[in-house]
Amino acid sequence: MQHPNQIFLLSEHRDTYETLLAEKNLPDLNITDKPQEAHIVLADPPLLSQRLDEFSQLEWVQSTYAGVNALITPEFRQDYTLTNVRGVFGPLIAEYVLGYCISHYRHFMHYHQQQQNKQWQPHLYTSLQSKTMVILGTGSIGKCLAQTAQTMGINTIGINRTGIPTANDEFAQTFHINELANALRKADIVVNTLPSTPNTRALLNRETLQHLNQALLFNVGRGDVLDEASLLLAIKNRWVEHAFLDVFEQEPLPPAHPFWKLPQVTITPHIAALSFPEQVVDIFADNYRLWRDGFSLNNQVDFEKGY
Amino acid sequence: MQHPNQIFLLSEHRDTYETLLAEKNLPDLNITDKPQEAHIVLADPPLLSQRLDEFSQLEWVQSTYAGVNALITPEFRQDYTLTNVRGVFGPLIAEYVLGYCISHYRHFMHYHQQQQNKQWQPHLYTSLQSKTMVILGTGSIGKCLAQTAQTMGINTIGINRTGIPTANDEFAQTFHINELANALRKADIVVNTLPSTPNTRALLNRETLQHLNQALLFNVGRGDVLDEASLLLAIKNRWVEHAFLDVFEQEPLPPAHPFWKLPQVTITPHIAALSFPEQVVDIFADNYRLWRDGFSLNNQVDFEKGY
Repeated sequence: MQHPNQIFLLSEHRDTYETLLAEKNLPDLNITDKPQEAHIVLADPPLLSQRLDEFSQLEWVQSTYAGVNALITPEFRQDYTLTNVRGVFGPLIAEYVLGYCISHYRHFMHYHQQQQNKQWQPHLYTSLQSKTMVILGTGSIGKCLAQTAQTMGINTIGINRTGIPTANDEFAQTFHINELANALRKADIVVNTLPSTPNTRALLNRETLQHLNQALLFNVGRGDVLDEASLLLAIKNRWVEHAFLDVFEQEPLPPAHPFWKLPQVTITPHIAALSFPEQVVDIFADNYRLWRDGFSLNNQVDFEKGY
Repeated sequence: MQHPNQIFLLSEHRDTYETLLAEKNLPDLNITDKPQEAHIVLADPPLLSQRLDEFSQLEWVQSTYAGVNALITPEFRQDYTLTNVRGVFGPLIAEYVLGYCISHYRHFMHYHQQQQNKQWQPHLYTSLQSKTMVILGTGSIGKCLAQTAQTMGINTIGINRTGIPTANDEFAQTFHINELANALRKADIVVNTLPSTPNTRALLNRETLQHLNQALLFNVGRGDVLDEASLLLAIKNRWVEHAFLDVFEQEPLPPAHPFWKLPQVTITPHIAALSFPEQVVDIFADNYRLWRDGFSLNNQVDFEKGY
């Protein structure tokens, strides 16, 4: 081994990544602390976006996030291979969405309040069985959510750009994005899993949200797919009964934002699907072996499409 | 039709049952308000237990509950056929258990508190994937819970009186009740679905609970399967990290009970699985047709076994 491949780690969990990488014992790989030496960068996109020009020998960036928007602004360099993490978020998103659906329909918060008052009072409820869930996006996250939802008796409708069912029929029905209004009219629950692209930005707006009727609305994709002002109107008009928001146009959500105090909004700080470092390193290790042997990498991001 | 079959309705939801029964338009069936005329009683067991001797022509009682303990006290008459409701509770119990598991592991209550303070603070969490759930009881409820849990990546162990796997392998493993301690040592989550019988009473006691290590404990079976004093000790010793209790030795739970104020206990007022009147009437209607034609009934309760 004369010329080891040099990797630079740029993450708020840098120490964890260093430990995990050492445990993998990958061949011909050396961690460097000099940006100008690095061929590979394992990075949180927001951190890397501020230092992208320091890496003069950059060949490949493995993002520790699914979302790489911070790196694909047109003015940034695109002379390297960018890979992200995918495929590990589905089960975490499914837990988040189904957990909050159950918590809502089964009055968990209400019973918590009653317990504080030593109050024994049952409330009628509806089950998830026979609810209809419309899922925007039929990628790995949408598919995993749909499969889990269906085992709980939920009827699922997937929305994508083709209207063509996914390969393994994960959705009971698949609608073309042009039929979004028809799908939303059937929805008890709407879940956005879409990334931010010119085509998806503000897709959930006043025009589309008005087709809902007292639905639960989840945003676990990207903040700007949902027009926040339109959501306020949708709540006022009861198109939306409750919104569960994990992503926002601006994060952290500013203290003055009206969402914080709305009882019809549940706010979580972008945790619906964390990329656990163990999973990121597994993905990186597989990709590293491919890269070293000259094969094309998994989870490549298309700079044009933005995902 | 010379002699219609007379049914007496004895339920806190009497009016609902009258409407639903009328919609079924069952042949040769007439609702009576005279107990001494009734051949059939559709009843909430606690209400019927106070009036059982008024029904001089009683042939068949269809319970509106799964739990019929109120009717099988030895001093009560047993000269009639008793049927209960079964098979409709599995999905409701699965929602309850998995919803509270997700709520716990994913810090839903914590984020709710933070929102009140406009606080944006992510917390690490673990997923349901690769947790181990020990389910006491491998009947229809346990099986349904196990299947749903497995689609969320949970490893399931069923406990029954034989140790023999269920017909469709709903559980990853099945342990004999004599191996309960071994199973509990593996448990991240324990769910009691067992009915109250001489064999199950206080099965979860100091001796058995001590094998747990910071587990989540659910009681959705019957209150007296769990010894409540032992649970207090188990929480103190961190054998149990959090208990989710839907059933109790005494219901409603008395105001002076220590459970109300314990942050490690979540109390719900016996709602994990309500029998929705629509489902009860469906079960009754099927049974009525069998009964009228002289066939044996579904969901018969064995007075000896108590379920």
